[in-house]
Amino acid sequence: MSKGKLYGIGVGPGDPELLTLKAKRLIETNDVLANPVKKEGEVSTAFSIVKPVVDLSGVEVIDLVFGMTGNSGDYWEFGRVAGDEIIKYLSQGKNVSLVTLGDVSIYSTFMYLEEYVRGKGYETEIVPGIPSFCGGAAKARIPLTLGDQCLAIVPSAKDNPMVAEALDRFDNVVVMKAGKSVGKILEMMRERGIGSDRMTVISNVGMPDEYVGPVAEGREYGYFTTLIIKKNAEKGE
Amino acid sequence: MSKGKLYGIGVGPGDPELLTLKAKRLIETNDVLANPVKKEGEVSTAFSIVKPVVDLSGVEVIDLVFGMTGNSGDYWEFGRVAGDEIIKYLSQGKNVSLVTLGDVSIYSTFMYLEEYVRGKGYETEIVPGIPSFCGGAAKARIPLTLGDQCLAIVPSAKDNPMVAEALDRFDNVVVMKAGKSVGKILEMMRERGIGSDRMTVISNVGMPDEYVGPVAEGREYGYFTTLIIKKNAEKGE
Repeated sequence: MSKGKLYGIGVGPGDPELLTLKAKRLIETNDVLANPVKKEGEVSTAFSIVKPVVDLSGVEVIDLVFGMTGNSGDYWEFGRVAGDEIIKYLSQGKNVSLVTLGDVSIYSTFMYLEEYVRGKGYETEIVPGIPSFCGGAAKARIPLTLGDQCLAIVPSAKDNPMVAEALDRFDNVVVMKAGKSVGKILEMMRERGIGSDRMTVISNVGMPDEYVGPVAEGREYGYFTTLIIKKNAEKGE
Repeated sequence: MSKGKLYGIGVGPGDPELLTLKAKRLIETNDVLANPVKKEGEVSTAFSIVKPVVDLSGVEVIDLVFGMTGNSGDYWEFGRVAGDEIIKYLSQGKNVSLVTLGDVSIYSTFMYLEEYVRGKGYETEIVPGIPSFCGGAAKARIPLTLGDQCLAIVPSAKDNPMVAEALDRFDNVVVMKAGKSVGKILEMMRERGIGSDRMTVISNVGMPDEYVGPVAEGREYGYFTTLIIKKNAEKGE
């Protein structure tokens, strides 16, 4: 029996219609759809995005427990555990779709298991998706980069010195997972003479409390909050 | 008569199947598809990506001349000229799709005319697409960012000091439009003790001379070349 192939599939930032044609085709024709969850029985955000637009008849949907403790060592360990689980299906000749929010190459847990599964002699393929910051920039109708400008993408880990570095040196800065740091980042902008009107908040896109717009100081934002900071106003006239 | 609406639609990095479901639906149902070209009669890369997967019957396809001289002032001027051309259709109540390679927020010329058209009182919407660097990372099966890492995206304008800044400070660096600078960037990496094996070349994706893999010193690469430089090897073991 020939071995199955593992597909890591980015499903985009939240709108089911932002799935690619390729993602839809593969999820519908592969044997198994793995739903990455923190604990058994949960529905992953990636799975809720896919469900309204793909036909899952004939597809075996499985839960793949993939804990997230925020410690990078753990991710590799979880990748091996989840990889062995996936290999059970691949070794039976089944093709597996593993769906992931946004794009697969941007902060995705899939990469931790891809290398492991490939190392065990199985074929893998990555299907890119739209990253959340592109989805957010589109909603806000602002460019991330124009002309010769640069863009820095930084995660807002607590006290991450790279946020300051990026604000010092880059025209455009995307801060991901920034929900809890908005106040602190506004302070860093103030210290650098960057007005708070240069920040666009993209929060919980696709969820009932979605918000895209200027920052409201003092307001609370959820975990899935991305900030786009553009140091220079851009106008054609 | 009600006014038409302008849609800026990202069509992804080259593979027609990486079009989103939303892009396909809008291009098929909007009245006009504007094909951004450098001169009349040309076929744009974005249009060749779309053509195999969308049904264009009933869609009026127009050329939209949008010169690229590399001078940012000119882009705004071209944006106004192209914007006025688009407005001719919008004012007749026609909805217009304007397709753009990759994602709309990353170095796209669409943003230059969007603000102008919106300023003239027309509705606009941006539909994000997969940026070329996400497409490239997927092909190369490498992560752009993991865990708490940062990512810098820099255009390789000649003698751009930001390439050095990014190499000094960021774990992961994407250099876009790098075809002519590969040798120079390798030299900058050498000066910083970063091995040439840390560079992945993504060149002319979707074209007959597509190349994704390690850099071959001395080889020539085309204009649509993206480099991914990862300063640290990442392995789970």
